[in-house]
Amino acid sequence: MASDSAARTPQLRKDSVTKRWVIFSPARAKRPSDFKSKSPINPNSDQQQQCPFCIGHEHECAPEIFRLPADNPDWTIRVIQNLYPALSRDMDVVSAQDPLHQNSDSGPGRVVISGFGFHDVVIETPVHSVQLSDLSARQIGEILVTYTTRIRQLMIHDVIRYVQVFKNHGASAGASMSHSHSQIMALPIVPTAVAARLDSMKEYFDQTGNCSVCEFKSSKDLLVDVSAHFVSIVPFAATFPFEIWVIPLDHSPHFHELDADKAVDLGGLLKLMLRKMALQLNNPPFNFMVQTSPLRDSASQLSHSHWFLQIVPQLSVAAGFEIGTGCYINPVFPEDAAKVLREVKVSPSV
Amino acid sequence: MASDSAARTPQLRKDSVTKRWVIFSPARAKRPSDFKSKSPINPNSDQQQQCPFCIGHEHECAPEIFRLPADNPDWTIRVIQNLYPALSRDMDVVSAQDPLHQNSDSGPGRVVISGFGFHDVVIETPVHSVQLSDLSARQIGEILVTYTTRIRQLMIHDVIRYVQVFKNHGASAGASMSHSHSQIMALPIVPTAVAARLDSMKEYFDQTGNCSVCEFKSSKDLLVDVSAHFVSIVPFAATFPFEIWVIPLDHSPHFHELDADKAVDLGGLLKLMLRKMALQLNNPPFNFMVQTSPLRDSASQLSHSHWFLQIVPQLSVAAGFEIGTGCYINPVFPEDAAKVLREVKVSPSV
Repeated sequence: MASDSAARTPQLRKDSVTKRWVIFSPARAKRPSDFKSKSPINPNSDQQQQCPFCIGHEHECAPEIFRLPADNPDWTIRVIQNLYPALSRDMDVVSAQDPLHQNSDSGPGRVVISGFGFHDVVIETPVHSVQLSDLSARQIGEILVTYTTRIRQLMIHDVIRYVQVFKNHGASAGASMSHSHSQIMALPIVPTAVAARLDSMKEYFDQTGNCSVCEFKSSKDLLVDVSAHFVSIVPFAATFPFEIWVIPLDHSPHFHELDADKAVDLGGLLKLMLRKMALQLNNPPFNFMVQTSPLRDSASQLSHSHWFLQIVPQLSVAAGFEIGTGCYINPVFPEDAAKVLREVKVSPSV
Repeated sequence: MASDSAARTPQLRKDSVTKRWVIFSPARAKRPSDFKSKSPINPNSDQQQQCPFCIGHEHECAPEIFRLPADNPDWTIRVIQNLYPALSRDMDVVSAQDPLHQNSDSGPGRVVISGFGFHDVVIETPVHSVQLSDLSARQIGEILVTYTTRIRQLMIHDVIRYVQVFKNHGASAGASMSHSHSQIMALPIVPTAVAARLDSMKEYFDQTGNCSVCEFKSSKDLLVDVSAHFVSIVPFAATFPFEIWVIPLDHSPHFHELDADKAVDLGGLLKLMLRKMALQLNNPPFNFMVQTSPLRDSASQLSHSHWFLQIVPQLSVAAGFEIGTGCYINPVFPEDAAKVLREVKVSPSV
């Protein structure tokens, strides 16, 4: 039986997209259908009155970048600066070093560049008690379009090489605010894991003539669901239990080229995945990350690249083995996780 | 002032050993000296009576591999099988696939090898309430020698390519048992992060003629302490706040070649680092990892490699940004962390 992980033996699988090895270890597992979060989110447990992300509290936030609808006090989405940014958007503050060039003056083996960049927050709803998965497909689509609008604004800075869009939901997934929000970080470097992903996809493309992300589109055993323009799967070598990738059916390298119609379609499939995950796994803390391509690469450099949305429920802890090796131990086989998620019935909604 | 992180501006630093970018972000920090664990370990808070790692409860454990002293009921260290191993040591169980070769039969892009390997536990003391840092330098040295003995046993299996020694201390650092123990995993692959570290060190060596780990030995600003044969530092691009590396002064690729005298010297420095960390950071959960070289590589392949011990207190959460990019945000500059740790006074002990 595909869902009977006790009958499985351990395997190591190498992800063709990230080139990472993952250990699948059924001996450490409960039955796949028994996985539940031990620290579920209760969205109504904190005090709404003191939240600066709520409508009417805009003055308690760092400066606004834009809102939807524009200039409207009755906003639905706001993009603001992060009050505690990891990078500085003030070029003067960081001008002691040249942000475009590496500086090795500080000693042998010491590579430093100044921390110029942007760290924004997207407030996804004016209402404290509303979670992302409570919104309609159209409303989630507007949030996705907001990400793309902001990425296109950030692209005018020549020094910005990569933009990471991500969401932390729940304290143990790294969220310091419970009001539904996501973050956008614009970086003066291509992060090591992104470069490794692109290199790995290029190698696969050169060897096989195929895109390693496109290969998943025909993986029936890994399929969770499909929409007009997207497919959701559990990757063959998923790093984390019940990790989900939402993949555009069109082979395209850049998330920020998503159009409004496809954004609504993606909004619907993302909503469905979040609702299935919440029902099956007891409303777990989660992260999602847009896995896209560097901004400055040309179309020909990117012919092998394919963006996707990665959703990771927080069900396990990275410990010494994972820090030491970069390998993860996943107790749930991806085919089993996909089957469990396929079979979760969610009630019709907005 | 070196310790005044508020006066610093953000920086990105690239580690010359791991090639990973790290963002140093003082705006997100407390003063370096104010960092404390929010979930400190209380070693006496659980019930000793029910612990299978305690002396007298050997029959409740998975099979023993060896003990010190041999055949002695009054043991000081035991090496046993992990009751829930991530890999199977039973070649028959995993023989459906050839453990020596990758198997791509399962579909395009699907690389699988069977999960043959070893997952052992080292019980570091017979006494439940004793923590690793309570032991003497000589006793810790015996634990380190136990690791090397077990690695040499595991090396006889041709299929084993890398052995990861690690310790998880505290539940939030991944420890499922509070009785002081560490783990040894023998893998049929070279993990991706290990291969990347070796490649990065080779590149640095080819470019400069120097070992990137040896470079740290003369880094006075990063120095924490030094012993006869080892130096402890905070790496220039530390991934985690207050991360420490203990580096052998001799340029040597393999941890398992450590001799008994140097093991006692390393035991003393490791004990000092753990005590400084516990005092300064409020007894935090932590991990340590032996970062060594693959077993099958020849001496000439390894001329650029240098093993070290990495100690990581658990003070932060890996969230969407880190999962997405593989980059970490570290709020404490390594020079500041090193200064704080240098200045922690620990009382003389066993």
